[in-house]
Amino acid sequence: MSFVDTLLGKPLATSEEHTERIGVAAGVPIFGLDALTSAAYGPEAAMTLLIPLGLAGLQYIVPIVTAVLILLGIVFFSYLQTIAAYPNGGGSYTVANENLGTGPALLAAAALMIDYILTAAVGISAGVNALTSAVPSLQPDTVLLCLVILAILSIVNLRGVREAGAAFIVPTFMFVGTLVAVIGFGVYHTIAAHGHPVPVVAPPPALPATVKYLGIWLLLKSFSNGCAAMTGVEAVSNGVNAFAEPRAKKAQTSLAIIIGMLVVLLFGTTYLARAYGITAMEPDAYHYQTMVSILTTAVFGRGWFYYVTMGSILVALSISANTAFAGFPRLARAIAANEYLPHVFLLRGRRLLFSHGIYALTGFTAVIIFLFDGVTDKLIPLYAIGAFIAFTLSQAGMVVHWRKQEGGYKKHWWHMFVNGFGALATGITTLVVLVTKFTSGAWVTALLIPVLILIMLGVKKHYSRVRREMKDMTPLNLVNLEPPIVVIPMARWDRVTEKALRFGLLLSKEIKAVHIHSDDEGDEDLEGLWGDKVLGPIRKEGLDEPELVTIASNFRFVLSPLMDYILKLEDDNPGRKVAVILPEMVVRHWWEYALHGQRVQLLKLMLLLKGNQRIVLVNIPWYL
Amino acid sequence: MSFVDTLLGKPLATSEEHTERIGVAAGVPIFGLDALTSAAYGPEAAMTLLIPLGLAGLQYIVPIVTAVLILLGIVFFSYLQTIAAYPNGGGSYTVANENLGTGPALLAAAALMIDYILTAAVGISAGVNALTSAVPSLQPDTVLLCLVILAILSIVNLRGVREAGAAFIVPTFMFVGTLVAVIGFGVYHTIAAHGHPVPVVAPPPALPATVKYLGIWLLLKSFSNGCAAMTGVEAVSNGVNAFAEPRAKKAQTSLAIIIGMLVVLLFGTTYLARAYGITAMEPDAYHYQTMVSILTTAVFGRGWFYYVTMGSILVALSISANTAFAGFPRLARAIAANEYLPHVFLLRGRRLLFSHGIYALTGFTAVIIFLFDGVTDKLIPLYAIGAFIAFTLSQAGMVVHWRKQEGGYKKHWWHMFVNGFGALATGITTLVVLVTKFTSGAWVTALLIPVLILIMLGVKKHYSRVRREMKDMTPLNLVNLEPPIVVIPMARWDRVTEKALRFGLLLSKEIKAVHIHSDDEGDEDLEGLWGDKVLGPIRKEGLDEPELVTIASNFRFVLSPLMDYILKLEDDNPGRKVAVILPEMVVRHWWEYALHGQRVQLLKLMLLLKGNQRIVLVNIPWYL
Repeated sequence: MSFVDTLLGKPLATSEEHTERIGVAAGVPIFGLDALTSAAYGPEAAMTLLIPLGLAGLQYIVPIVTAVLILLGIVFFSYLQTIAAYPNGGGSYTVANENLGTGPALLAAAALMIDYILTAAVGISAGVNALTSAVPSLQPDTVLLCLVILAILSIVNLRGVREAGAAFIVPTFMFVGTLVAVIGFGVYHTIAAHGHPVPVVAPPPALPATVKYLGIWLLLKSFSNGCAAMTGVEAVSNGVNAFAEPRAKKAQTSLAIIIGMLVVLLFGTTYLARAYGITAMEPDAYHYQTMVSILTTAVFGRGWFYYVTMGSILVALSISANTAFAGFPRLARAIAANEYLPHVFLLRGRRLLFSHGIYALTGFTAVIIFLFDGVTDKLIPLYAIGAFIAFTLSQAGMVVHWRKQEGGYKKHWWHMFVNGFGALATGITTLVVLVTKFTSGAWVTALLIPVLILIMLGVKKHYSRVRREMKDMTPLNLVNLEPPIVVIPMARWDRVTEKALRFGLLLSKEIKAVHIHSDDEGDEDLEGLWGDKVLGPIRKEGLDEPELVTIASNFRFVLSPLMDYILKLEDDNPGRKVAVILPEMVVRHWWEYALHGQRVQLLKLMLLLKGNQRIVLVNIPWYL
Repeated sequence: MSFVDTLLGKPLATSEEHTERIGVAAGVPIFGLDALTSAAYGPEAAMTLLIPLGLAGLQYIVPIVTAVLILLGIVFFSYLQTIAAYPNGGGSYTVANENLGTGPALLAAAALMIDYILTAAVGISAGVNALTSAVPSLQPDTVLLCLVILAILSIVNLRGVREAGAAFIVPTFMFVGTLVAVIGFGVYHTIAAHGHPVPVVAPPPALPATVKYLGIWLLLKSFSNGCAAMTGVEAVSNGVNAFAEPRAKKAQTSLAIIIGMLVVLLFGTTYLARAYGITAMEPDAYHYQTMVSILTTAVFGRGWFYYVTMGSILVALSISANTAFAGFPRLARAIAANEYLPHVFLLRGRRLLFSHGIYALTGFTAVIIFLFDGVTDKLIPLYAIGAFIAFTLSQAGMVVHWRKQEGGYKKHWWHMFVNGFGALATGITTLVVLVTKFTSGAWVTALLIPVLILIMLGVKKHYSRVRREMKDMTPLNLVNLEPPIVVIPMARWDRVTEKALRFGLLLSKEIKAVHIHSDDEGDEDLEGLWGDKVLGPIRKEGLDEPELVTIASNFRFVLSPLMDYILKLEDDNPGRKVAVILPEMVVRHWWEYALHGQRVQLLKLMLLLKGNQRIVLVNIPWYL
């Protein structure tokens, strides 16, 4: 296992759990990358819709981003409370489940699972797309590059949450650090120049205005586009129990730092865009640049710092998928704990992580990357809906939560108002996103959510049935402990058959050795051998005689006559168990299996499928 | 099973075998198609090498083809004798094995197997290539078309040998009939015109001569190219036992008809080519036509009969692969009977055929078609070597056979001379083919043959070892019939565990219920339950008490501590058997398996791999 140890790290004992708890320094990159990197594209997403206004659009951008920041603030305070209220992990699913009931909880679960998978796919493909626009010769390998990054993220995360934090801490702070430097330097210049800084390199001129005023619909769309910056906020409250004690405190601090940084980045870039007169470019324009690229050029010019900044953004984007790796397994565990997902999601792997969640996320993300050829633009319309459904349900759940608290409405009216307002705002945003993006791909998400909910209900139903049928609180029943009838399929008399017969004699006095005789075979005198080799010694010892049953098979089939015999035997002896002894050859090399019929395997399968509670299989291995 | 019945026909009882025996009318298409269709390309293959001589080349072609026909005659008489001597099937493998020993037999086996697979691939791709040169828009689907024909041939053959004969009888006689009509009409005209018939449409003029005389090397090459017409001769003697009684007689008659027809076709087309002044065209020439196409046009013009003739050739070529389907499974059976190939090749399927041979041939042919993109020209250089190696070995074997007969050399000197001469001639041809085609692909065959031989030796070695280890001619040993120690892995106390425990009580007085305790679990009071539910009733009945073994697992692994315990138990109790009782859940739908851990399956696998003769597995199925 030393290769696995090298790749994934040595197994951790359950008692070592505290060593895997993380602090704030690791919590920010692990849970914050997705949120933070959205500063690189969120404002631009909002500004793209303002292009028709020309330079005049810049008047709208600060208010719009401020509105997003207010919403972000509301959501932030809401989640601070959620973390305090649910110190074992309070994602939307948990909050909805405890306060709104099963239906809303499953809706939140389905929405969040889809969103985490899309977060991983979007993050990775955004990073790769940024790389391939810089180096177009890599374009044909987009899917391969995406899968390589996915594999790396998956392995780093399987090594444990601490190691993932350590690996991502440098890129995260590089990303934040360079952008903060741009903002700081830009703001300094702006103030020094009394609000009218001179760009080092002039930004491309704004397109001529085609409209004069912004309608309410476009305003809402711009706002909801800007809300893309909020998708990562859920992750911290979902992963509270990854933190060291005092965990709620550490989680809240991490969330505060993430949101704080995000506010600085979002507001800073927007403010400077207006100060420098930077508008968004049409994404398919010749020499297209992102807004951040134009801004950095305007503030610092195209020196080495520009390339460091762009490089940090590229790296941070491609690893922003990591938030999904931190969130999805914990979410799956929470759902599986209520038996709506398979139990494997509850198991913790060698490094104390919910490794099956990581496997599932990796698998689904790979499928998504394949289906969409690793192109971010194709994925974006499916995205964000899930996050906003979850926000809405979580905050609506918190409203109910407050009402149920001691003191109720009277004591908590402010909390309820804040959460209720947040739920309303995110609810409206959800609708806007769904409507504006529906035909371009959001319908896929809208369709997948009920499918996922149905699957989860099916899983729950299955587990409930199993639990009901397996539960046994009655004492061990010792009545009717009758030895089984033993059936030994026998091709010829050899040492394997002898071994099976010896075991059969231990089990029962009633043994049927069944030989299927096909006309094709050479006629070995099995009857004679049976008399000599078996009945002889048995009689000498005075034991009960096993019976040799010979069945002719006209059609050269072996298994079906055997099955028929076993089922008939079981039918003729109601209440008796039938033990089928199957000698099985174990070879040393895999290829040797090709040299032996797989009849034993097939018979096992048929017995399991066609058999019933009274048929037991006994496997006698024979090692060559 | 009604779909399978419809597709492949109802199962045939072994006693119905005589109804599946074929007569001469079916024998000719089944075993003769490959040989007969070679008349469509054999003479041309020889004539292509004579192109440099211009019209003068026509003087050589009749003698060269006559030489091929003499060789064919020698091989024919040799195989007539072989059929009489080996009425149960006397392919080269059998003859070489009985007369020359294992080494040459395996060489013949490997050569023939490769040649049959190539026959199938070449036949199918030749048909498809003919079709795609007529309809060039089908070109991109070459591989797909090849695979469709392969699938059809495979299914027709799986329906049984009689049905295959019935299906192919019409195309075969259409092919022979149209060509014989062309020859008869042409010969009539030639005689009527005193050797100088006037073509209906003049053949393309011969290319100007570039050389005056034919060197011996080119002569040999032309001769060996013409020998491509002989590859199918082996099939009949390999399949004697497919015929109805008197089988040797019927097989000989079929062979005689096949060879007779082949002689008529080969000699007729060659004679007419000279009479009409038809030379071969360069295959990559503009408006390339096959020699048969030119000849038919010269005799009949481009009327409907031309298209019927060409259509028949196309159909016959594409189903000529059927000879491989008739030959390969019988060859594989003969080899498997000596344990050099897996035993499955001995089994006869539902329609009394050696169906695994058909599966194997279909699989390998599909691989070859894939690897060579279904292009005949890429396959041709690999081809024919195998057949000539087999001819040589078969005839050399017959020489030894005659010497061993009563009377020996003195009585059989003429037989020995004929066979020896044939062996020499085919041996030289083998060398010529190998040398002239080596660099263009024959090296693949030359490399594959020893690989196949090594595989066959490995298979034999394995079976010999198994046979040695399994053979048991000693009577049943009843000493030391001690009950096993029973191990029952137990996660919790439920009805499945209860069922396992009840079975365990039947088996032994020594039962260990093993519980792996992980810190992750909620602490169910298993000890308490064990006392209440199990020990209580056991004590009341005065039975031996089963032991509850609890093992703590610090690393949350379940299987390895369990395996360690079982192996240690087995080690501590030398001579005792250990029976591990594994309750297994059987669900109704495949997807339900995803909802339950596959631990039982994994444990079974680990027990088989790491276990030994003394560990027995008992599977208690639990049906939901």
